[in-house]
Amino acid sequence: MRNVAVIGVGAHPVGKYEHLALKDLAREAIWGALRDADVEPEKIDVAYVGNSLGGLLTGQEGIRGQVVMQDAGFGGLPVINVENACASGATAFRGAWLEVASGNADFALAVGVEKMFVGDIAKSISAIAADSELELSRMGMQFSASYAIHPKINLKGKMRDYGWTPADFANVAVKNSDNGSKNPVAQHRRPLTTEDVLQSRMIADPLTLFMCSSIGDGAAAAIVCSADAAKKLSSRPLVNIGACILKSGVYRLPNDDRADTLTLTAEAAYEAAGISPEDVDLAEVHDAMAPAELMIYERLGFCGPGEGPKLIDERVVTLDGNKPVNPSGGLSARGHPIGATGILQMYEIVRQLRGECGDRQIQNNPKVGLAQNQGGLLLGQDSAAYSVTLLHT
Amino acid sequence: MRNVAVIGVGAHPVGKYEHLALKDLAREAIWGALRDADVEPEKIDVAYVGNSLGGLLTGQEGIRGQVVMQDAGFGGLPVINVENACASGATAFRGAWLEVASGNADFALAVGVEKMFVGDIAKSISAIAADSELELSRMGMQFSASYAIHPKINLKGKMRDYGWTPADFANVAVKNSDNGSKNPVAQHRRPLTTEDVLQSRMIADPLTLFMCSSIGDGAAAAIVCSADAAKKLSSRPLVNIGACILKSGVYRLPNDDRADTLTLTAEAAYEAAGISPEDVDLAEVHDAMAPAELMIYERLGFCGPGEGPKLIDERVVTLDGNKPVNPSGGLSARGHPIGATGILQMYEIVRQLRGECGDRQIQNNPKVGLAQNQGGLLLGQDSAAYSVTLLHT
Repeated sequence: MRNVAVIGVGAHPVGKYEHLALKDLAREAIWGALRDADVEPEKIDVAYVGNSLGGLLTGQEGIRGQVVMQDAGFGGLPVINVENACASGATAFRGAWLEVASGNADFALAVGVEKMFVGDIAKSISAIAADSELELSRMGMQFSASYAIHPKINLKGKMRDYGWTPADFANVAVKNSDNGSKNPVAQHRRPLTTEDVLQSRMIADPLTLFMCSSIGDGAAAAIVCSADAAKKLSSRPLVNIGACILKSGVYRLPNDDRADTLTLTAEAAYEAAGISPEDVDLAEVHDAMAPAELMIYERLGFCGPGEGPKLIDERVVTLDGNKPVNPSGGLSARGHPIGATGILQMYEIVRQLRGECGDRQIQNNPKVGLAQNQGGLLLGQDSAAYSVTLLHT
Repeated sequence: MRNVAVIGVGAHPVGKYEHLALKDLAREAIWGALRDADVEPEKIDVAYVGNSLGGLLTGQEGIRGQVVMQDAGFGGLPVINVENACASGATAFRGAWLEVASGNADFALAVGVEKMFVGDIAKSISAIAADSELELSRMGMQFSASYAIHPKINLKGKMRDYGWTPADFANVAVKNSDNGSKNPVAQHRRPLTTEDVLQSRMIADPLTLFMCSSIGDGAAAAIVCSADAAKKLSSRPLVNIGACILKSGVYRLPNDDRADTLTLTAEAAYEAAGISPEDVDLAEVHDAMAPAELMIYERLGFCGPGEGPKLIDERVVTLDGNKPVNPSGGLSARGHPIGATGILQMYEIVRQLRGECGDRQIQNNPKVGLAQNQGGLLLGQDSAAYSVTLLHT
């Protein structure tokens, strides 16, 4: 397979846009990516469109991608609608990568879009979480509650074993709020203090409101082509795709001590790219709930078991550290419009690697960025879909 | 890219199964494909799962593929949920093909599944048809009505220009009902007469009930691997994938005389496989409404403008002809469980090419089969997604 590069990215800021439809959000991201890539729309051979809740929330059950692509002025090209809950964006990106890597396409577009500020929000949040027949209908589970008590996540067990405290979780949100305050596409731009987070409303013990990502409308797009073509077309630093790994969760019995799926996904990505966790200069990770970010550090190999809070306290993962995590503000501050999130992560990493992030530009001269996206929660699994993507200049 | 073969297919019969969930339908198809391929489940590297209405009709808005794959005993592998309305199955098949063709996977599984006998059926049929915001909310259009009057389909215009009669449309359904009567996975197994079809209830002039595909529950699965691997693993006739082409519709003004997208899709498929329409020995096509099959003949290059009825009258496309079309019974008799249809087409073609179809085995010693699947209907377009796949021994 041939080497693939990201030649352009675009985004619609995350927020509450009651008057905008899926196509309005997507159009700005798609056109932004085309401008950024300086590529004519006619060059695009194929589009992957990631969206999760459009059927339930907007009534557009099918052909969502064709609707947004036609609106953006495209026709004729293959459009593949993909869904993987909160990992829908990464799944779209992986599809675009594979098209170009295989030589089946020269230019591929990945779009992630979500419109959440409509209708019955509680229903929408629950719908993506789980096996609807089993967990939602029969058990009446809600996503944050599910996260707080999920036996595979075992949050209370980790607090007991590692000595993690609610303040440790709050500090994740504080870091990310600082970053988000400097990001023009972020939904939440108010820097929070540890007290702000701890004193916000309890959602599901130990999770308070500001530890949980909120709902939001948003979109992002990326255009990929062969590294050879990108070199010819652009004088900017070339952003290569080093690895694009997707896995689904594994059903586990209690006390199953096999490595969790995120660890395996990250290991596969490092192996594919021929690098190790130490080589990663920045990461955008899936902090759907603040404590998740601490566990993700471990599973990506950024620290040993239980050492997550130290990475924040010692300012390793802050904007001024040597391995900034969620410089965009992450899911909690940049926002988490479900199907868009995975490509919003690429948007941030590409722009950080190119040095285009202004006030929140990281200062460690980054060469390698990691995007980690995951989606869904099934009984007996840690999560339903995991993605790790490595980008490097 | 490397040559890819279909090494196994499976299906759940199409019908009304109120007591079965998506996962029950999919499980039988997946396990059937594994048995048919004689491949261990552990060999499968990636799965593409096509479904269109699971969010609206079953409440499973996200991660439908992970739910059905976990239930079938799979975990860890990448699962990509794809949607393209009635072309969701072909889109899943194309994904599996690309994974293996590129070398990214050695064995890929494509699943198509739909559960339609639940809830508000009228809503479900409408939801997949169109741009929900524009056509459904504002115009209150219903799918069969939309088909009957759609300016890009221009059914009444074709009756005027070609002299097509309702009896010509009925004869498509008659042919397909004959074929379906011999197919153990078909939903409708009663052979119909021209009178039966013409005298059935009028749905949207000139379409009567038996000219329209009905709703149904069903599933199908296919396992693909490199042609080299398939040769080593199986002594049966090798079924190769010659082309796998997907396109989306093009927005057109009235009287736009550019070739329609299905014609372009078929031409691209013939070119990729290095064959011409004359080389096709059998086809499974998307007769969502009976008249569509007549237009599809033209667009696939099987006959000249308006000559479709002649292919039926002269028994070219019947089971005993030299180019049987819809030997399975097609959408009207085999059934049209939306997301499953594209892979049900592959199921039929693979088994016909292998000579496994018993009573309905075609007798022209088939070497090349064509599957044509399409989905969605947007204003200003002929359709939203078109797929043509060529399989050959």
